[in-house]
Amino acid sequence: MNYQLVLRLLGNILRIEAACLLVPTLFALFTGGPDLTAFCLALLITAAVGQGLRFIPVSRARMQARDGFATVALSWIAMSAFGALPYVFSGAIGDYVGAFFETVSGFTTTGATVLSSIEDLPRATLLWRAMTQWMGGMGVLVFTLAILPSSGEGSVYLMRAESPGPIKTKLVPRLKDTAKILYTIYVGLTAAQILCLRLAGMGWYEAVTHAMTTISTGGFSVKNASIAAYDSLLIHWIFILFMFLSGVNFSLLYYAICRQFKEVFTSEELRFYTCLAVGSSALVAASLVCQLGQALDGKTVTDAVFQVVTVMTTTGYATVDYDLWPTFAKMVIVLLMFAGASAGSTAGGIKSIRMVLLFKTLRREVRRILHPREVTIIKADGHRVKEETLSGVTLFFFAYVAAVLIGALVVAWDDIGITGAFTASLTCVGNVGPGLAPVGPTGNFGALSAVSKVVLSANMLLGRLEVLPLLVLLFPSMWKKR
Amino acid sequence: MNYQLVLRLLGNILRIEAACLLVPTLFALFTGGPDLTAFCLALLITAAVGQGLRFIPVSRARMQARDGFATVALSWIAMSAFGALPYVFSGAIGDYVGAFFETVSGFTTTGATVLSSIEDLPRATLLWRAMTQWMGGMGVLVFTLAILPSSGEGSVYLMRAESPGPIKTKLVPRLKDTAKILYTIYVGLTAAQILCLRLAGMGWYEAVTHAMTTISTGGFSVKNASIAAYDSLLIHWIFILFMFLSGVNFSLLYYAICRQFKEVFTSEELRFYTCLAVGSSALVAASLVCQLGQALDGKTVTDAVFQVVTVMTTTGYATVDYDLWPTFAKMVIVLLMFAGASAGSTAGGIKSIRMVLLFKTLRREVRRILHPREVTIIKADGHRVKEETLSGVTLFFFAYVAAVLIGALVVAWDDIGITGAFTASLTCVGNVGPGLAPVGPTGNFGALSAVSKVVLSANMLLGRLEVLPLLVLLFPSMWKKR
Repeated sequence: MNYQLVLRLLGNILRIEAACLLVPTLFALFTGGPDLTAFCLALLITAAVGQGLRFIPVSRARMQARDGFATVALSWIAMSAFGALPYVFSGAIGDYVGAFFETVSGFTTTGATVLSSIEDLPRATLLWRAMTQWMGGMGVLVFTLAILPSSGEGSVYLMRAESPGPIKTKLVPRLKDTAKILYTIYVGLTAAQILCLRLAGMGWYEAVTHAMTTISTGGFSVKNASIAAYDSLLIHWIFILFMFLSGVNFSLLYYAICRQFKEVFTSEELRFYTCLAVGSSALVAASLVCQLGQALDGKTVTDAVFQVVTVMTTTGYATVDYDLWPTFAKMVIVLLMFAGASAGSTAGGIKSIRMVLLFKTLRREVRRILHPREVTIIKADGHRVKEETLSGVTLFFFAYVAAVLIGALVVAWDDIGITGAFTASLTCVGNVGPGLAPVGPTGNFGALSAVSKVVLSANMLLGRLEVLPLLVLLFPSMWKKR
Repeated sequence: MNYQLVLRLLGNILRIEAACLLVPTLFALFTGGPDLTAFCLALLITAAVGQGLRFIPVSRARMQARDGFATVALSWIAMSAFGALPYVFSGAIGDYVGAFFETVSGFTTTGATVLSSIEDLPRATLLWRAMTQWMGGMGVLVFTLAILPSSGEGSVYLMRAESPGPIKTKLVPRLKDTAKILYTIYVGLTAAQILCLRLAGMGWYEAVTHAMTTISTGGFSVKNASIAAYDSLLIHWIFILFMFLSGVNFSLLYYAICRQFKEVFTSEELRFYTCLAVGSSALVAASLVCQLGQALDGKTVTDAVFQVVTVMTTTGYATVDYDLWPTFAKMVIVLLMFAGASAGSTAGGIKSIRMVLLFKTLRREVRRILHPREVTIIKADGHRVKEETLSGVTLFFFAYVAAVLIGALVVAWDDIGITGAFTASLTCVGNVGPGLAPVGPTGNFGALSAVSKVVLSANMLLGRLEVLPLLVLLFPSMWKKR
């Protein structure tokens, strides 16, 4: 690994984080928040370390794949390590491991929390908590590509390692311009949701924080009861709309804005994603009506759609405690934690396009028995998918499930039941947020042991960075100086 | 599909099944069992249909891959459909779907039962129940290869479709001789266990039935309490020994008998399998001692080892109700339901060799980032593994997990909790037997709906036949006459 280059890039990231920390610091200053000192201290430390890394001389600026992956993995860890400081300094979260978990959960847009009473926290701290999700949603390194002067050759590896999905699309020839377009859509969506929520009667502070955690598919709310705190179907549907949009591949949103509707309507991933949302909502509604005896009215349908969309987009809000639902409805929710949203969105999970490709590959394998001499290539959206991509996708599925199961085993030592341990790990790898049982929508991760919190933090990062960047750190040859 | 050929082969299978039905019929005759009429009737029907299929003219005897896969899948379904008749005729199981489930569970060596009180059944019925597992363990079609005159060209497809594992080894050049060797080992192991159990004080009837369900890694017991009915550590260890041996690749047993110990000691699968057994037992014992406060004595160790070995070999006996264990110990058991035993054994599950290959493939993917120009082939036991095999294995993993999750969703409608529904499906796909919660070691599958029983039966067959033979039946082009 090119230590000099990686550390210099880490420095960039920490300086950006320090700049972001300025926002809650100023907020605390102007609102007289009790957490002002904590933010000042965190800002100073982060800025100092970020500035200090500037003095490292870079003898070789050329980036190789390994350096790109290392930069991404280490940046996310460093960002979380420093981003946790305000919680600890202000005493909002007593132990550093818990604060680290909360920050990783923020940056990875998971939304799992160790806090039992969110509303007790100062408003500036909750603003920072929402901001971590918004920063993590689109990826911080992609952000550096958009604003900084070219980081030299090989910055494509940064994008490859940080942005999710098996097939990377370049919207425009230059990487930098692609990043800019994506960020513009991201900011635009956030602004649109703030406006909608404000018009529906929500206050500015809540509208801004909720929009930041919706468009990033994060799911941190400033309310203890999450979105259930708002007794308005209109507000629920605003959330549903924007969660759904944030789970769509941003390239498609770009094509829609450019009026290239053909690209949108022919997208197999979008079709799968939409069918999954509608089908799952119908199944949940059927369970609520048939098994729980609820009336088939607007409230039941909204509850079903809201919970389905919030889990499949890996946002993780709640308007009802679905842990009290019948097993069938809960099982739909658990399965949606595996996969749902689209690649190229801010969401986590296995992603719809991978599911489409997996089923197509399986179908081909069966067809090979029936038609041994048939040459079969697999297409997505009319384009041929490389065999390399296909084997990468099936292998990704294995790594993903393995991470879920290993995480579940570690968490199981805390004796929270099979369902609790399993969904805790699943929801973290999938960057969803809540699981079931003790870690369900009304519970939290605070009671877990420090070991569990560290392993679940690793799982959140593994899910967000799509396995490889984190795994590569485990290889001793990665750490050799080159 | 070549209907004539497939139906003719189905006829062979049914005549063999009729011959097997003769055993419990004679047993009922000589012991004056109340189920004599039921067995006579079932035998007559099965023999008549089997004989009737003999009159189908076969115009083209050449077998293609599709015919082989169809024959295997349809044979297993037909065997179960006719094998269920004695339960229904004698009234041992009231509904046909339940009886079908029990028989599929037998032939696939799963060991999941719908019966709440096993000891209430006549002894001939319990003998038949144990025999289904013994017949299914090694595979009935492989049996036909061993005894019948050559079924014509292409019978290799039968073996490919029926015997488990990603890499098929031919011990000796002729398929027929390989099948004979495997059956000799199978019979030898069974005889050895009968003798051991008899010497340890068990009666002949119980020794024979238990040996049949151990060597096949089936797990049906003639006792309500399963092996917990025998309060003897010696007997428990006899079971552990033979379960462990039955989970080893039979080729390795053959090499051991031939004193080719080098093959045995260099087997990576055997090493993984042994390490998994020892490691998992240690984890379970640690949980029992540290979390449940049990003393670290012979009983605790035996309980841990017995439960670990019975689940990882997919046998599914029990000497304790592990549903009462702490979450961690239970989680170890659940994870072992995924994978454990070896390919080429009588066990189900994903198989150790596949896990070894999956981890190797994942490691290679990571190494590709570190050393982009390195050419990497993957070896197992010193031999190069084809890329085709590797992609087949990762795809198998996906299909396997997908079957578990889809099954869990269907069973969830019965509202037996997430853990119950999930382990019910997992234990059936893995051919283990018991799961957790309502379908745990002291529970049974009787209360599930008919739909659940059918889907779980399909999952058991899917697991036993390793996905493809059953999936191929779902393709309309399979059913076209050729």
